[in-house]
Amino acid sequence: MVLCRVPRWSVGLWASPGWWRTTCTLRALVRPKRGPGCPGGASGPLACSMFSKVSSCTPEVMLTQERYPVQRLPFSVVSEEDLAAFERIVPGRVVTDPEELEVSNVDWLRTARGCSKVLLRPRTSEEVSRILRYCHERNLAVNPQGGNTGLVGGSVPVFDEIILSTALMNQVTSFNTVSGILTCQAGCVLEGLSRYVQERDFVMPLDLGAKGSCHIGGNVATNAGGLRFLRYGSLHGTVLGLEVVLADGTVLDCLTSLRKDNTGYDLKQLFIGSEGTLGVITAVSILCPPRPKAVNVAFLGCPGFAEVLQTFSTCRGMLGEILSAFEFMDAECMQLVQQHLHLASPVQESAFYLLVETSGSSTGHDAEKLGCFLEQVLGSGLVTDGTVATDESKAQALWALRERITEALSRDGYVYKYDVSLPVERLYDLVTDLRARLGSQARHVVGYGHLGDGNLHLNVTVDAFSAALLDTMEPYVYAWTAGQRGSVSAEHGLGFRKRDALRYSKPPPAVQLMQQLKALLDPKGILNPYKLLPTQA
Amino acid sequence: MVLCRVPRWSVGLWASPGWWRTTCTLRALVRPKRGPGCPGGASGPLACSMFSKVSSCTPEVMLTQERYPVQRLPFSVVSEEDLAAFERIVPGRVVTDPEELEVSNVDWLRTARGCSKVLLRPRTSEEVSRILRYCHERNLAVNPQGGNTGLVGGSVPVFDEIILSTALMNQVTSFNTVSGILTCQAGCVLEGLSRYVQERDFVMPLDLGAKGSCHIGGNVATNAGGLRFLRYGSLHGTVLGLEVVLADGTVLDCLTSLRKDNTGYDLKQLFIGSEGTLGVITAVSILCPPRPKAVNVAFLGCPGFAEVLQTFSTCRGMLGEILSAFEFMDAECMQLVQQHLHLASPVQESAFYLLVETSGSSTGHDAEKLGCFLEQVLGSGLVTDGTVATDESKAQALWALRERITEALSRDGYVYKYDVSLPVERLYDLVTDLRARLGSQARHVVGYGHLGDGNLHLNVTVDAFSAALLDTMEPYVYAWTAGQRGSVSAEHGLGFRKRDALRYSKPPPAVQLMQQLKALLDPKGILNPYKLLPTQA
Repeated sequence: MVLCRVPRWSVGLWASPGWWRTTCTLRALVRPKRGPGCPGGASGPLACSMFSKVSSCTPEVMLTQERYPVQRLPFSVVSEEDLAAFERIVPGRVVTDPEELEVSNVDWLRTARGCSKVLLRPRTSEEVSRILRYCHERNLAVNPQGGNTGLVGGSVPVFDEIILSTALMNQVTSFNTVSGILTCQAGCVLEGLSRYVQERDFVMPLDLGAKGSCHIGGNVATNAGGLRFLRYGSLHGTVLGLEVVLADGTVLDCLTSLRKDNTGYDLKQLFIGSEGTLGVITAVSILCPPRPKAVNVAFLGCPGFAEVLQTFSTCRGMLGEILSAFEFMDAECMQLVQQHLHLASPVQESAFYLLVETSGSSTGHDAEKLGCFLEQVLGSGLVTDGTVATDESKAQALWALRERITEALSRDGYVYKYDVSLPVERLYDLVTDLRARLGSQARHVVGYGHLGDGNLHLNVTVDAFSAALLDTMEPYVYAWTAGQRGSVSAEHGLGFRKRDALRYSKPPPAVQLMQQLKALLDPKGILNPYKLLPTQA
Repeated sequence: MVLCRVPRWSVGLWASPGWWRTTCTLRALVRPKRGPGCPGGASGPLACSMFSKVSSCTPEVMLTQERYPVQRLPFSVVSEEDLAAFERIVPGRVVTDPEELEVSNVDWLRTARGCSKVLLRPRTSEEVSRILRYCHERNLAVNPQGGNTGLVGGSVPVFDEIILSTALMNQVTSFNTVSGILTCQAGCVLEGLSRYVQERDFVMPLDLGAKGSCHIGGNVATNAGGLRFLRYGSLHGTVLGLEVVLADGTVLDCLTSLRKDNTGYDLKQLFIGSEGTLGVITAVSILCPPRPKAVNVAFLGCPGFAEVLQTFSTCRGMLGEILSAFEFMDAECMQLVQQHLHLASPVQESAFYLLVETSGSSTGHDAEKLGCFLEQVLGSGLVTDGTVATDESKAQALWALRERITEALSRDGYVYKYDVSLPVERLYDLVTDLRARLGSQARHVVGYGHLGDGNLHLNVTVDAFSAALLDTMEPYVYAWTAGQRGSVSAEHGLGFRKRDALRYSKPPPAVQLMQQLKALLDPKGILNPYKLLPTQA
């Protein structure tokens, strides 16, 4: 079974690189002209001059190695002999064309840029194994890449790492219609898998805006959270098995399709959220819940954050097992989607807005539960206005208000992004505090996110990137979060950009153990270097 | 908050050691008289003569070191100086009294027996840290012990390992009534925690027959499955944070109370299911779901296993989000609970029996959904007879039929126990095949378990233990399971008894990586030696 008709890029929030390329309003950190070649020779056909062809409309993205104080580690440089060896392993699937490489060298946010000279497209785990065995012997660094939708610079090379793409590993291996267990290759696009299992009356246990592009392997490697987390929980619970190729090419087959397996250490857990630094995930076995028969979406206005919290408690109590999403956004978010995207608010102006989704097995029962809940929160004044969508198009319109905030923010100016976990009762205090701290230095300081998961997306927009402003925010935001025993990265991971913030959420013995695990599994450090683990002093 | 009124032993299925001691029908493998002392000196007050005081009614349990071909590793032997050092670390909580030690040296099934000379009862993680630092320096082996309810000999010493009990680490640290996140010490008894959170309108995400004795730390260390697994999933998803003391005494604080945290490798996952071999869990943070307002239990009779599977599919579709348990037992199980426990079947004689539980937020809605489901399965002939309990006592009576099978089996003779995961459609074939293979050599070959999780409990009863019969079953059962890519231990773990079966479910590279992880985290191998990892050649 090949999921061959999966659209590579969805429209909307997580638009394609093409969408970005034709959007002139983007004010990402850019450099006006091409930088120097990357290490190891700038003169050959594989040098960084490959990045010259950029639409005249789009400013070129600054090379990561120029923007950040990062030193290339002493990996080998890809030679013509290496290319010939790769050609023998994956014939016809060794990409060196600069234009083709561009999309994979630059991240989705257009704030990180590598200068890889070669991208490989294996089709099987055996090919991945042979590639890694070769790279391990030759001491060549490798950047595993799925849909390249990451937000922390983890999915693109920092220097000239070989890009190992899972794009052609897009086969569904099996689906059990009794248990709902799906087994597939790592490069299957999430949206394609969603459609595949929905046709069989199941749903994927995760959903995110990037679904049109992101690969399931990348989802697992970054422990993606997303919109169904509240209902179906973490991938640490729903992923049942993994096949992983280790740095030296060893194929680690933990691809069981069992709900329960207590035979030894649960090795697959090591790789969930390891961001490609411990091994390359080549196949995934995942538990899909039955498809809900009824889905309702309510959009509500709340007068204050205390009311938001009380509404959440009420909601958990009254909607119970059918609650599938509880998202919030503040008034400034609504202003931005109105101003930049011309979306209309379906409810009267409020300090906070909530999106509540139910997914259940009975239309009548679910509507009744939702009705009782709405009556309760409207009657008690927790909620001042609201609207409910029962058909799919209206539900999508309500979801768009929440899902397109990122897009609206990007149109507002340069965006500083934070993604933190906090105890729910303190969640919004960070927004208020940072807003007061920045004053007129920021255009907007906004908060939104997955309230049900204690996950705040804190974003700051300004006219243009400023290092001085960054100093005002960092480590302030991280220290504030650490003060609440929060997480400085709830779901985005650490990647390249946040790796030095790790210490705010993890104590030294934990960081040390992570480094020991990396050394054990990847002694030469060839897998996704410069990512996740902090810079060594 | 001290959970001090928790009953140490529940009645019923998981009865107290006292219950066993006064039960003469138990035909566990026993030895008629005391064996020799344990290594390191049999003459002192700490030698194995401590095990002499056993009720005249109960046969003494054979020492593990005598029954199995196992060699003591070259750990140090506890000296008087060591006892004095322990007394300084945990004053008044160093147990050397033989009678007190007996309960902790013998496992619940009374088939494994160590000869530890000392049990320590720390109250804090700092004390655990000091104990382990000392043991690490002195090369003393340690057997971490929670409620000692394990079924694979993992919770008791094999030789003279120091028993490190979590019994006094029974404090609840915090409970957030908005998020439902509980943080507590490792020695809290599950039943006490259940009551604690239920009073606050939440439930623990796990429940098992051993709840009156088992400790939450032990649950996590063994990745306990149990009765709510179908609904709330694996501890890998519901455990949010752990505090763990490593072999050298380092305290690893990963005790976050956050639903989402993607800062670095998820280290806590390493310890979930590691059976005390990588570190000692001292505190747990766990997500508790809201307490269901309505619980219904149906007990059904099915004419065949094909109908069992179809009923399961129908059930998942029609009960959806309120389905919380789907258990099955075969006709021989029912005969045994009738014969040995004098429980009456509430439905007419059938080839298979099902226990279906719903837990939801609306009494009316849930009853309606259950009613529709029952109408469907009775009408279509998938189910031939059934009864429903809506009040708690009747529900408990129905649950007893399923939960007390283990007890009935023990009364039937010596029991060989297997706990495997299989694809649901092949689940019962293993019972049929083994029954045919054993013929009249076995009294009963029965199958029951968590069908919804693909988890079969396969039990064989005979007059008395026979090594020849064991050879007929092993490796047959393991090889059969491996042939279906099943797990030879779904939820019980490997412990001491099943460690050499690991290779049936995990390939050599996985076993090798497990050994490397053990060497990294516990280089001297002092933590729960002779457990989980296979005997080294």
